Amino acid sequence: MDSREFKEERDGKVAQIEALIQSCLPEEKGYAKTVIGAMNYSVLSGGKRLRPMLMEETYRLFGGTGKVVEPFMVALEMIHTYSLVHDDLPAMDNDEYRRGRKTTHVVYGECMAILAGDALLNYAFEIASRAFQIEPGNENVGKAFSILAGKAGIYGMVGGQVADIEAEDMGDQVTKEQLLYIHANKTAALIQSAMMIGATLAGATEQQIADVERIAYNVGIAFQIQDDILDITSSLEVLGKRVGSDEKNHKTTYVTIEGVEKSKQDVRKLSEEAIALLDSFTARNEFLDALLRALITREK
Amino acid sequence: MDSREFKEERDGKVAQIEALIQSCLPEEKGYAKTVIGAMNYSVLSGGKRLRPMLMEETYRLFGGTGKVVEPFMVALEMIHTYSLVHDDLPAMDNDEYRRGRKTTHVVYGECMAILAGDALLNYAFEIASRAFQIEPGNENVGKAFSILAGKAGIYGMVGGQVADIEAEDMGDQVTKEQLLYIHANKTAALIQSAMMIGATLAGATEQQIADVERIAYNVGIAFQIQDDILDITSSLEVLGKRVGSDEKNHKTTYVTIEGVEKSKQDVRKLSEEAIALLDSFTARNEFLDALLRALITREK
Repeated sequence: MDSREFKEERDGKVAQIEALIQSCLPEEKGYAKTVIGAMNYSVLSGGKRLRPMLMEETYRLFGGTGKVVEPFMVALEMIHTYSLVHDDLPAMDNDEYRRGRKTTHVVYGECMAILAGDALLNYAFEIASRAFQIEPGNENVGKAFSILAGKAGIYGMVGGQVADIEAEDMGDQVTKEQLLYIHANKTAALIQSAMMIGATLAGATEQQIADVERIAYNVGIAFQIQDDILDITSSLEVLGKRVGSDEKNHKTTYVTIEGVEKSKQDVRKLSEEAIALLDSFTARNEFLDALLRALITREK
Repeated sequence: MDSREFKEERDGKVAQIEALIQSCLPEEKGYAKTVIGAMNYSVLSGGKRLRPMLMEETYRLFGGTGKVVEPFMVALEMIHTYSLVHDDLPAMDNDEYRRGRKTTHVVYGECMAILAGDALLNYAFEIASRAFQIEPGNENVGKAFSILAGKAGIYGMVGGQVADIEAEDMGDQVTKEQLLYIHANKTAALIQSAMMIGATLAGATEQQIADVERIAYNVGIAFQIQDDILDITSSLEVLGKRVGSDEKNHKTTYVTIEGVEKSKQDVRKLSEEAIALLDSFTARNEFLDALLRALITREK
């Protein structure tokens, strides 16, 4: 699959996922319509829909063909969205713009943004529970539910957010272990959730699900380190000096701890391990291969 | 069952529920320990544990004897707790005390209180998903999940919160219909969730579950109207004039719309209908009868 083919196929898939998400959005009417408006504004923000895409492709990889994956695809994107809405709040990162659009609390007020985030998290589980009606007797649906909740909470994304916030006040006291904990939970956990739910719903074995968890971990960590590398090297290219935004903020990153060269090596190692694990499955999904490679090796 | 027997039995049940909740709390360790501390502080606030109690008793009423109800009992209490933590936030009601203790954001800061609420809501579904391991083949567990999420979200509690917040700025423009919507969702929805999940897990019929939904609606609405009545009449008794806190705040309540006498009649009507429905079941749970009666007819 060449780069043009990949992009065409990806754009087609994004459009399909957008349509699926649209079909699940609550109608803006009744006494709760303000918060529903805030929810829909937040969800329809032009995201890359990476998590639902990874879920669906992993589901296909392991032979899944049904519609039971769809409620979980939408649910995970809603969980991702709620986390952005709450992250942007004045008491958290206090961001006024995201992807060029005003953030939810700027448009709807802080109170409504808190409630919209709560509503999205809750609605995620409400949507996901539709999977029980699609395949009532399928025990894997219950397992998928456990993964969805587990990877989003204190032993997943929320845990990573908390550690990240506390790291902000620690300057260079942040350790590599702590940084890996943050990336593993704030970033990798929802990628793990996506791929593990896809594998679980398709009936993958325990070993395959464990391998998928490892692949997603490596992809998430490599993605984040690559982000840190690009923050420094792109500044170097453009400005001729090292003033990445992380460095300006005196933020400890993988690169400030390990240096650029070691960081690049580690990205390569994590990527190769992930690809090798993916290749070890007898089944193939060429698009998923290309998608994971694109994620890890991106240059901007 | 006389009043002393009822209170003794109730206190014993509260203690059992406390122990159950304690056994499910996350351990305060690791990089996420601050938010776990905030979660546990919020949950261990000395609440009446009314919702888990109603769930368990309704489960017993319909012949339930297993442990599958326990994760849902804890989950519902966590959903109730998260809603209080977020309600108390500066951007919402800005309350510094609840039940005589400092609120979560006062102790842990606003940022950690938002995350603790998010974590509690998420952890609720994580705990509830343990029910799939207890009874893997039981399709009612999936149905219970749908009820849990549905009654907590925009078509339940969150919807009621939003309408309540918007009503605050509307003064006497608030209609009876709007007020009933607020009570039905902000108050009654989680009582419905409790009783409907109990009935569902015990294998009650669709008709029985619908009747239970109606009973819980009546109890929730009657409870709330009784609250409004007590706000006015207790002020009358103590101060000799009508200065209930709702009236001082120019808040529209059921009583300001309908007057005290009509409100008392409506509480009676709602209660009688609820009791009649409960009596229509062939099964009996004397403690549940007493609990519902105590809720509706309380004098303070």
